[in-house]
Amino acid sequence: MSQVNIGIIGFGTVGAGTFEALNTNQELITNRVGAKVVVKKIADLDLETDRGIFVDPNIMTTNAMELIDDPEIDIIVELMGGLEKAEEFILKAIKNGKHVVTANKALLAEKGEKIYRAAIKYGINISFEASVGGGIPIIGALKDGLSANRIKTIIGILNGTSNYILTRMTNEGLPYEQVVQEAVKLGFAENPPTLDVNGTDAAHKLAIIVSIIFGAPVPFDQIYREGIDFITPDDIRFADEFGYNIKLLAIARDLGEGLEVRVHPAMISKHHILANVNDAYNAIFLEGDFVGPNLFYGLGAGKHPTGSAVVADIMNVARQIKLGAKNFTPPLAHAIQPKQNICIHSIDELTSAYYIRFSALDQPGVLSRISGILSKHDISISSVIQKGRQIDGSVSIVMLTHESREIQVQNALEEMKGMEILTKKPVMIRVEQQ
Amino acid sequence: MSQVNIGIIGFGTVGAGTFEALNTNQELITNRVGAKVVVKKIADLDLETDRGIFVDPNIMTTNAMELIDDPEIDIIVELMGGLEKAEEFILKAIKNGKHVVTANKALLAEKGEKIYRAAIKYGINISFEASVGGGIPIIGALKDGLSANRIKTIIGILNGTSNYILTRMTNEGLPYEQVVQEAVKLGFAENPPTLDVNGTDAAHKLAIIVSIIFGAPVPFDQIYREGIDFITPDDIRFADEFGYNIKLLAIARDLGEGLEVRVHPAMISKHHILANVNDAYNAIFLEGDFVGPNLFYGLGAGKHPTGSAVVADIMNVARQIKLGAKNFTPPLAHAIQPKQNICIHSIDELTSAYYIRFSALDQPGVLSRISGILSKHDISISSVIQKGRQIDGSVSIVMLTHESREIQVQNALEEMKGMEILTKKPVMIRVEQQ
Repeated sequence: MSQVNIGIIGFGTVGAGTFEALNTNQELITNRVGAKVVVKKIADLDLETDRGIFVDPNIMTTNAMELIDDPEIDIIVELMGGLEKAEEFILKAIKNGKHVVTANKALLAEKGEKIYRAAIKYGINISFEASVGGGIPIIGALKDGLSANRIKTIIGILNGTSNYILTRMTNEGLPYEQVVQEAVKLGFAENPPTLDVNGTDAAHKLAIIVSIIFGAPVPFDQIYREGIDFITPDDIRFADEFGYNIKLLAIARDLGEGLEVRVHPAMISKHHILANVNDAYNAIFLEGDFVGPNLFYGLGAGKHPTGSAVVADIMNVARQIKLGAKNFTPPLAHAIQPKQNICIHSIDELTSAYYIRFSALDQPGVLSRISGILSKHDISISSVIQKGRQIDGSVSIVMLTHESREIQVQNALEEMKGMEILTKKPVMIRVEQQ
Repeated sequence: MSQVNIGIIGFGTVGAGTFEALNTNQELITNRVGAKVVVKKIADLDLETDRGIFVDPNIMTTNAMELIDDPEIDIIVELMGGLEKAEEFILKAIKNGKHVVTANKALLAEKGEKIYRAAIKYGINISFEASVGGGIPIIGALKDGLSANRIKTIIGILNGTSNYILTRMTNEGLPYEQVVQEAVKLGFAENPPTLDVNGTDAAHKLAIIVSIIFGAPVPFDQIYREGIDFITPDDIRFADEFGYNIKLLAIARDLGEGLEVRVHPAMISKHHILANVNDAYNAIFLEGDFVGPNLFYGLGAGKHPTGSAVVADIMNVARQIKLGAKNFTPPLAHAIQPKQNICIHSIDELTSAYYIRFSALDQPGVLSRISGILSKHDISISSVIQKGRQIDGSVSIVMLTHESREIQVQNALEEMKGMEILTKKPVMIRVEQQ
């Protein structure tokens, strides 16, 4: 029986989940791989905390370089997170000819290119199924099972924390702040959950997805990002009246000439399968030119689901090592990089329908003035709801537009700035019309 | 640029879809694989029919052996369907050292073992992503992305035709026969759609899924199968009142000691994500011990989705050929076959909740006699609906049971046979309580 030795750097939640999966399903893993997968060493700065599983203290170290320089270790599993240090360890591991498995979405999305180049140069394998969608095997599907397709559309619910918050706001009519506070208290959200709720985490994952589709890293800073903290129970109620749910969506569209890549809260029809992805679940909806619509759904985070993805990557590499593979599929699953550069359109160029909620004084002529400005900017309105009920002395006037250019909507809202009839900054939410 | 040559046997719908995908996305496929995939020959008995795509007549032949004996062909793509002849061609191709890609679910489910053994013996790769769920990459997910898990539950909607029929019956209140006739007329169903509506096609696909999970072929004749032709609009309406939809479900459960593997119409809560998989869509819901619940959703059949899966398999094998792989992952993704044999429980041993609809004379004492017999067989009732409305001179008495043993339900129904108060054979539908 051959043996594949791994070293785990970072023994937090995901590290413990990985170790547990390797232990619990050891026989099954050995049978499937045809080799024994052995955790030779684990590095973490914290050797004290009880992870709830037994680990031989002799395999624990605070020095990650012990693993990276160990000639008997075949695969380095980087689960420490963070940017600089993780990058340094991964690059050193690659130079030492070790295969790498990582769940580090921020690192891959923001600084992936250097790592991918090194992996290709040294002929090693870098796998990162766990970086997107927790246990959902979406990376594998894009690299392999859907590889015959030009993927035209991706719409993902890629952040479990914000989906949990929006689900509770929707089901219980609660304000954002209260749900966040309770989520932090219950351990469902970090304190503060900044990267989760401001769209950055979802954008990291979307960047990785898009980079596989196109075989090249995505310029991360060009991805438009907007968080969910401005959404109110009022918006959720109005969305409901129009037949929509509000979700934090990560959207990429291949327009032929360039891409849309953006993360923001959006209204989506209650009939769309994504509208019913609730709580901490993640889902990736995509459309390929041959496969048509596809959906992948599961838990997007957590010790066990993420451990499942990390171990799947380890098993895949272990299989290849065992089969004597000398070269490996390139990191982004493109042996030849496409000629076309990835060109991401500015959000200004987006064409979309829009929900706009105005808080206005309850006096004659308000509707006419607002709609006059919208009309001047060529924005045509498909529905209006104006309710008598006053909130803090204002009334809500809610409009849905037909397809409009983002820049025109932004210009119209800019022109309304400082209008004395508006008591608050208008709320704008894009409407996904897929 | 290296080149991988393929030969396609069977140029019907899926063959044409495969050819079209290879042509349309040629550049993308070359980039992803790092080798050119070339269709060197196509064999079909029918050289006349217009498939709507241009094919060089020089690569067409009626003689499949020309492909199988061609030393330049690396991969044989079997898309002819059927059992004996397809098996013969595949076994010959394997002996000639050719890798095989097939979409032939019936062959793999009913006679897969011989083919798998031959593939292992000759060290070739046999891939069959297209055999289950059309373009949904579920086979790849089970072999790879979910491979760290013990899969405890599979619930699939695996037959698009029967799902289309049940969806129309549900949405439009139409009887089975009328929907089938229209589906045949519209080309959505074969004439007659026997294997689709009697559960055989779904059972083929479920057998393949289970065989990958356990690394061994499944004794196909032990899979319990029941069709949808007895379902009436009345049952769908009553299901609705109880909060259920009726779906043809393919279910496998790992009970620790043996498996449940069964295909039958079942009621499933409207809140379950599978209840909202409609029309010709397929979906596979599964639960792994680490990944938790996962859902895969997409078009389960059709030229393009199935072509997408066939080409993905071709690309995967082409990649491995290009990387100089000498051995391949075994057909069922287990290098070592688990010691435990697959043991499928008889349907009699099932524990489930049941819906039973009695058509009875509208006279005193009926409910008491029926419930008396159920009680005698230890079947406890959770809900009853009895409506005054008569259908053909009878009334419907509908019962939902608590969890009961199938054998007891069958015995109770057996005991009721010939009871003069029952005007028809009772209708029994299992209730999936996941």
